[in-house]
Amino acid sequence: MSILVVGSIALDTVETVHGRVEDAPGGSALYFSAAASFFAPVNVVGVVGEDFDFAEIEFLKARQVDLRGLKVEKGQTFRWGGRYHADMNHRDTLFTYLNVFEQFNPDIPEAYRNSRFLFLANIDPDLQLNVLNSVNDPRLTVLDTMNFWISGKRQPLDEVICRVNVLILNDEEIRELTGIDNIHKAARELLTRGPEVLVVKKGEHGAVMITREDYFFAPAYPVEQVVDPTGAGDSFAGGFVGYLAQKNVLTPECFRQAVVYGSTIASFNVESFSFERLKSLQPEEIEQRVERFREMVRF
Amino acid sequence: MSILVVGSIALDTVETVHGRVEDAPGGSALYFSAAASFFAPVNVVGVVGEDFDFAEIEFLKARQVDLRGLKVEKGQTFRWGGRYHADMNHRDTLFTYLNVFEQFNPDIPEAYRNSRFLFLANIDPDLQLNVLNSVNDPRLTVLDTMNFWISGKRQPLDEVICRVNVLILNDEEIRELTGIDNIHKAARELLTRGPEVLVVKKGEHGAVMITREDYFFAPAYPVEQVVDPTGAGDSFAGGFVGYLAQKNVLTPECFRQAVVYGSTIASFNVESFSFERLKSLQPEEIEQRVERFREMVRF
Repeated sequence: MSILVVGSIALDTVETVHGRVEDAPGGSALYFSAAASFFAPVNVVGVVGEDFDFAEIEFLKARQVDLRGLKVEKGQTFRWGGRYHADMNHRDTLFTYLNVFEQFNPDIPEAYRNSRFLFLANIDPDLQLNVLNSVNDPRLTVLDTMNFWISGKRQPLDEVICRVNVLILNDEEIRELTGIDNIHKAARELLTRGPEVLVVKKGEHGAVMITREDYFFAPAYPVEQVVDPTGAGDSFAGGFVGYLAQKNVLTPECFRQAVVYGSTIASFNVESFSFERLKSLQPEEIEQRVERFREMVRF
Repeated sequence: MSILVVGSIALDTVETVHGRVEDAPGGSALYFSAAASFFAPVNVVGVVGEDFDFAEIEFLKARQVDLRGLKVEKGQTFRWGGRYHADMNHRDTLFTYLNVFEQFNPDIPEAYRNSRFLFLANIDPDLQLNVLNSVNDPRLTVLDTMNFWISGKRQPLDEVICRVNVLILNDEEIRELTGIDNIHKAARELLTRGPEVLVVKKGEHGAVMITREDYFFAPAYPVEQVVDPTGAGDSFAGGFVGYLAQKNVLTPECFRQAVVYGSTIASFNVESFSFERLKSLQPEEIEQRVERFREMVRF
């Protein structure tokens, strides 16, 4: 089943203790696509500037990613710069230049409107609503957001939340959305608002998936050299949605497996800057690591 | 097999969003004993003041905890006061009065010296060394410590670390002990110093056990109402060591199960102030929750 993703495309300048890259391709839509493309065809909607070098993401085309929904606008591509602390759990944003992304107004091509799986990456909730209104009854809708929208665009965000099946958030975002400190209580509250599945991303501590009937705890893979955590959340979402789209089965079992596939792809992604690791990654490496996840929790 | 624990006995004044207790019995040795006593006989060495009310810990005697190693000294019992933040992950210490604990010099009764399992709770590493020198070749030695000793008593602490089989620490302590930010690299370094097993306590994120050959990731139980986190680490250690002492088998399988039993007991402990929950806890409740842990990670 094909997937539609709407999100940002960026040129990232990132510094970590392991090095530095300048204007490397990134952004939520691309990290998601690179990850999901191991499992299912992906249609991408986003915007870039005239300076964007499509050769850099040529590898995505070979993996059934349809880039026709990328608009090229006059001006510069969205740029983000950040520096990670030594523990990799904290970062300082050095600059954010929205550039052409500031006027982004996703226009879903006719050919994409029947995508059965939809990922609304972290963008303005008003735009997420527009996207939801443009697609034809998708089978599964998955939402990401951030504290900026939780505090600044609450009303449209609440409306989007009511209309999606799955929320992928971190601890802090869940607390901020609900005003409840205990994550498990907060999760139950969120599950009364519409979504059936809540995935809590916890970085190096793994991920938790909570539904009305199920509770699943996935470990994080013990990556010994985290080179660059940028895109971990979006590549997690890509593996998660990609796996579900490939199986096209929405049982609790499949959702649990999807969390593990998401964690697996994210664990590869952080082993390099930008898409380097995801470019070279082979399906059998994914399967091997999924088996290691299984072994890690057995008792 | 019987266990020897040497640690603190305290009267705790604790405030959380769920209430407040004053001078409630606590301390590492008692939390450990209450937890371990579900599995094996425990011998306790510690010190209390004349104000300590033994009736409060009478329940431990019924559970094969030998309290003859508790010395009553002239003066007041060690007192600690703390207030937890709403998220329960942070706390402020309001006061610490060492009282009789300041002069604590553990004297291991002859009858305890053949204990086969030893837990060195968080006390001065010089005293931990004395204890190690007083016991007759235990089968398994397990160490807890804290940042205070890591920065302040490094030399004797390093000596203790070389001589024990298992370290139970949190992320921060591991980073401080090794100067390595990546926990997995840091763990491997620690495992070259002597210990064969490292257990990383991560609170609401679960626990990880790392040996030279094994890597095990245990979830935390989703407790919806954490009433008081005090003693979580020591009750974890109690369940962990207790289970191993009961089985008296030190295979990787048993160590994995021991981590889950430790997490299980700790998850009950935080459901009440002081020992209230551990007092009423029944063996079948422990088994049921262990099964829930198994279900939580299955995929």
